[in-house]
Amino acid sequence: MSRIHHHPVQVHFGDCDPAGIVFFPNFSRWMDQSSLAFFMACGLPPWRELEKTRGIVGTPVLEINTRFVASATYGEAIMVETSVEEWRAKVFVHRHRVLRGDTLLCESREVRAFVGRDPETGRLKALPVPDDIRLACS
Amino acid sequence: MSRIHHHPVQVHFGDCDPAGIVFFPNFSRWMDQSSLAFFMACGLPPWRELEKTRGIVGTPVLEINTRFVASATYGEAIMVETSVEEWRAKVFVHRHRVLRGDTLLCESREVRAFVGRDPETGRLKALPVPDDIRLACS
Amino acid sequence: MSRIHHHPVQVHFGDCDPAGIVFFPNFSRWMDQSSLAFFMACGLPPWRELEKTRGIVGTPVLEINTRFVASATYGEAIMVETSVEEWRAKVFVHRHRVLRGDTLLCESREVRAFVGRDPETGRLKALPVPDDIRLACS
Amino acid sequence: MSRIHHHPVQVHFGDCDPAGIVFFPNFSRWMDQSSLAFFMACGLPPWRELEKTRGIVGTPVLEINTRFVASATYGEAIMVETSVEEWRAKVFVHRHRVLRGDTLLCESREVRAFVGRDPETGRLKALPVPDDIRLACS
Repeated sequence: MSRIHHHPVQVHFGDCDPAGIVFFPNFSRWMDQSSLAFFMACGLPPWRELEKTRGIVGTPVLEINTRFVASATYGEAIMVETSVEEWRAKVFVHRHRVLRGDTLLCESREVRAFVGRDPETGRLKALPVPDDIRLACS
Repeated sequence: MSRIHHHPVQVHFGDCDPAGIVFFPNFSRWMDQSSLAFFMACGLPPWRELEKTRGIVGTPVLEINTRFVASATYGEAIMVETSVEEWRAKVFVHRHRVLRGDTLLCESREVRAFVGRDPETGRLKALPVPDDIRLACS
Repeated sequence: MSRIHHHPVQVHFGDCDPAGIVFFPNFSRWMDQSSLAFFMACGLPPWRELEKTRGIVGTPVLEINTRFVASATYGEAIMVETSVEEWRAKVFVHRHRVLRGDTLLCESREVRAFVGRDPETGRLKALPVPDDIRLACS
Repeated sequence: MSRIHHHPVQVHFGDCDPAGIVFFPNFSRWMDQSSLAFFMACGLPPWRELEKTRGIVGTPVLEINTRFVASATYGEAIMVETSVEEWRAKVFVHRHRVLRGDTLLCESREVRAFVGRDPETGRLKALPVPDDIRLACS
């Protein structure tokens, strides 16, 4: 079992659309915030430090599956619960649950990989999941 | 087979993150733009007109599955190809493919429902897929 | 002198651009969050309640002047300090200062008006500043 | 007189707030798009190329003054007209006008500087306005 990180979010007026509810891409944004907060809670520095010291640029999403259950609106406090469900050799699987109190708003599984820059082309390429990061986050 | 709507997008500096590539929730935003553009290309008015005339507030996403294949950056022109893969009684399934030229960047399946407001509580609730809209978009 | 509301913001990866710093329109977004938080701290309910009870839809910006002094990046905690510098008959002037610790990042003056909907046309129109709101926020 | 660049924008559902109108920070976002489009129309490559060849990272905003005149909503086509009003030694002044047909929605003046990275600290610092860029854009 991985640790669970709790990332609080306050929903604001500008996060909502003309139907008065959260514009759904914002949930992806908040889950991404929670992903980085998860790694920082495990003791990792921000990606810009890891790029200098270890060549890790970030953990882009390869696949994302989200189920939306209930809507939210501005003035509400919600919580993103983030964990790592599975570590594989080259990717890991994030699980996010977004709750308002006990009410599940949406839940998501994301497959992500650690990436660095190819020194010759400058293009992003996948790296094996670093063992020490896996350990620090377990 | 449904019609396919082509929604062009220009990627801008502010759409990209510190890794220099599109911040991924923006792809959801562009697919959502293309969804509404699809319905307007079928002859429907904007949701705010449909709300007055027929009580339809929009088509919120119930489920979304996205696979990211290649990244994009600012200065690039990309295209969202949107269709309806399946019409069911209460929901429909959007398919989006995002391309830069012939290169697939990401593809997505979204399950959406038409919703209106409950006249008593003001809350959003699912409506059956309207037959005429299904016909207009087929 | 008006009360000063303190609105904390955590800067996230997705708030930053390819130069690695906050994409500047996000500062407007955070100041807008702080504006509504200011009014709610004064005891006002969210705009959607005020729309039902008093016909007030919000306080759109008429004019905004911002000076950017220093940049910020993700992983940083910043604070928006918001007050009302002046109440006039039909508008009010917000003052926002965004700080990281003691470092001023940017400051802004916004002229805003309370607006409601014209019952006939449905269009937004300015309302006089309500006396009780002015009092509650002074 | 500088050249005027015309940057078309389609307003989308997700650009609008619960009042049904464009959430105002999006106007800054569209003006920023138009600023870069202006320079690319003058023959400049994207910033990421200029960073490699000349050390120019971008043109961050130092000051912005915007006046909002009329609102816009989704489904509307608008146009940003961008020019350079003044070139000074270390900064330049952008002028943006956002129009829907002949209706002015908002107008803005932005003071911006060209910046590069200090090779020792990696921090952004202002550069003199390059003569050739000034010429290319006049």
